[in-house]
Amino acid sequence: MLSTDIVDVFFAIFEEIRFMLVDGKHYKTIWPNKALTGVTIIDQTYLPFEFKLSELRSLDEVVEAIKCMRVRGAPLIGVTAAYGLALALTKNSTDESLKVAKKKLIESRPTAVNLSWAINLISDQLKMQVNANRASMAWTLAKKLAYEDIKTNQSIGDFGFKVIHKIKKSRINILTHCNAGWLATVDYGTALSPIYKAFKEGLDIHVWVDETRPRNQGMNLTAWELGQENIPHTIITDNAGGLLMQRGEVDFVIVGADRISTDGNVCNKIGTYLKALAAKAHKIPFYVAAPISTIDLDYHGDNNLFDIECRDEDEILKVKGVNASNNITEVKIGYSSAYNPAFDITPAKLVSKIICEKGVYNPNEIEKALK
Amino acid sequence: MLSTDIVDVFFAIFEEIRFMLVDGKHYKTIWPNKALTGVTIIDQTYLPFEFKLSELRSLDEVVEAIKCMRVRGAPLIGVTAAYGLALALTKNSTDESLKVAKKKLIESRPTAVNLSWAINLISDQLKMQVNANRASMAWTLAKKLAYEDIKTNQSIGDFGFKVIHKIKKSRINILTHCNAGWLATVDYGTALSPIYKAFKEGLDIHVWVDETRPRNQGMNLTAWELGQENIPHTIITDNAGGLLMQRGEVDFVIVGADRISTDGNVCNKIGTYLKALAAKAHKIPFYVAAPISTIDLDYHGDNNLFDIECRDEDEILKVKGVNASNNITEVKIGYSSAYNPAFDITPAKLVSKIICEKGVYNPNEIEKALK
Repeated sequence: MLSTDIVDVFFAIFEEIRFMLVDGKHYKTIWPNKALTGVTIIDQTYLPFEFKLSELRSLDEVVEAIKCMRVRGAPLIGVTAAYGLALALTKNSTDESLKVAKKKLIESRPTAVNLSWAINLISDQLKMQVNANRASMAWTLAKKLAYEDIKTNQSIGDFGFKVIHKIKKSRINILTHCNAGWLATVDYGTALSPIYKAFKEGLDIHVWVDETRPRNQGMNLTAWELGQENIPHTIITDNAGGLLMQRGEVDFVIVGADRISTDGNVCNKIGTYLKALAAKAHKIPFYVAAPISTIDLDYHGDNNLFDIECRDEDEILKVKGVNASNNITEVKIGYSSAYNPAFDITPAKLVSKIICEKGVYNPNEIEKALK
Repeated sequence: MLSTDIVDVFFAIFEEIRFMLVDGKHYKTIWPNKALTGVTIIDQTYLPFEFKLSELRSLDEVVEAIKCMRVRGAPLIGVTAAYGLALALTKNSTDESLKVAKKKLIESRPTAVNLSWAINLISDQLKMQVNANRASMAWTLAKKLAYEDIKTNQSIGDFGFKVIHKIKKSRINILTHCNAGWLATVDYGTALSPIYKAFKEGLDIHVWVDETRPRNQGMNLTAWELGQENIPHTIITDNAGGLLMQRGEVDFVIVGADRISTDGNVCNKIGTYLKALAAKAHKIPFYVAAPISTIDLDYHGDNNLFDIECRDEDEILKVKGVNASNNITEVKIGYSSAYNPAFDITPAKLVSKIICEKGVYNPNEIEKALK
């Protein structure tokens, strides 16, 4: 076990080499305050209209932030939940408190397996500790998880960069769906990490950003991230990818994942499957980038009977934007009832390769990464 | 040639048997006033927030209405343009006036072939007339075109109904993209015409309505139309169709078309192609419903070098809705640049059948409908 101090030293070193920028200043998506009484997040429901930090000071505030997607993205949800556990145990470190916190956090969003993976991993270690040690250990483990997430994503970036580097085009057009950037993780991102690396290394890249209805994480978050780093990119509707592929204007597709089966089926943001079908039809490489923690050992073959989250219809029927008076305003855009499943499943046969922190795998061999 | 009076009689009879409703009252999408000084349209940019009629009194107002999509849908654009020609010739019936009007109208929207088809058809007949007769003849021909559109769509409804009727399910789930309903035509619609007929005949149907970004014609128009007729329907994001097909929740897909090649490739609203790919992957029938005038005799095979309209990025980056004070408000939702092609091409091999007013055709045999 790493002590809190050692983790802090790691972080201190890490601060020096990080590069994700907001208005020219380095940021992570989440960090604890020094007194360990709260964690600061970037409230992503305000982006791209406003860059707003928010401090979560209790388990319930963490659960609300995950449910309402103030933080989102499978890896970041896992880390945020770990901090939520630490906040809960700081208040009350009994077995009952641990049990309740674990349940509330795991139920906050059902599909991303990283969430339950992180919570189970940490709570298993906490259970073995006497109550008095639990809170400080929970903070240490949460910080360690955050640190490991950054390292993982750097590694994904390195492996993914090598893949992009092999594409022989003067300008490489990359399509991505949803947001699997640094805002979906603690830093760097999963699907965007290779893109950041490629740009830094001087490759001439351009990113097609699917707006990703209904919550527009592509338009709101991915485009914003890429803009902050001055990476050439263009927003498109989720409908446009097929035409672009028909015209040869997409060289590479890369997305993140919320859950991967042991034989390589990928559960990711709704609409991913449609892009994978189109990429296959046009022989365009379709890559998935995700940490090993995204692999669900209980999910294999067609056994995809886990909960595909269905969210509120108002996410489709209402939209937030900025009005003529420059105020953030929500407007109602639809009047019939709507159905809002949040994820779909891309079968392994449509996935070219999966990039994780250990390397680049054929989807049906992703289990090898676990060894 | 039909005289104006005879066409008016046809219309009068037709009024009795029409059934498309707005708040329980029968409407067409366009009609000339009695003095032939203007045409009334339903301004579709206000739907579903407001049902607003608007009178177009000049060629330029017609061109603006087509460009800004106050009227849209390939068949309705054709008819509106015909009325635009009549308005132009009412003011000035010279060869030069005819030529200018023809050019302005054809250029108002480049992709829908029905527009140039209608304008060429009518102007060829007008050219042979002495100037003094041109205006009245233009009105007659425009009315005839509108009347024929209604008949065409009724026929498409009858043929399409037979197709839907053969689906052996207790409840038939139909997915449609964009709006190919009565708002896209003079009445009844193309893709929705069989749905209206099926519902009227008592089939238990339910329609998945793709919201159809960026202009949301599915959410704004199709859902509104179906709601007015009390047909069960649910709005989904354009991303959701793949998952629904994976789950067996789509039995039939039907869309309209803006241009069809002589060998059955279908140019339609952006995103249609992604749904066709998914339908093929899941062996779900994918039908296209369109009048014969949608077939472009110059378009065959991969010769799709006509202009796929690219519209303003603000259609993606701004959205209109109703705010908390119940006012229609436009909000800015995206801050990077966006690319907004309006159509894509679904190759014939992904199309099960094309339904036109003459019957149901294999896509590669659609030329037979021309004979």
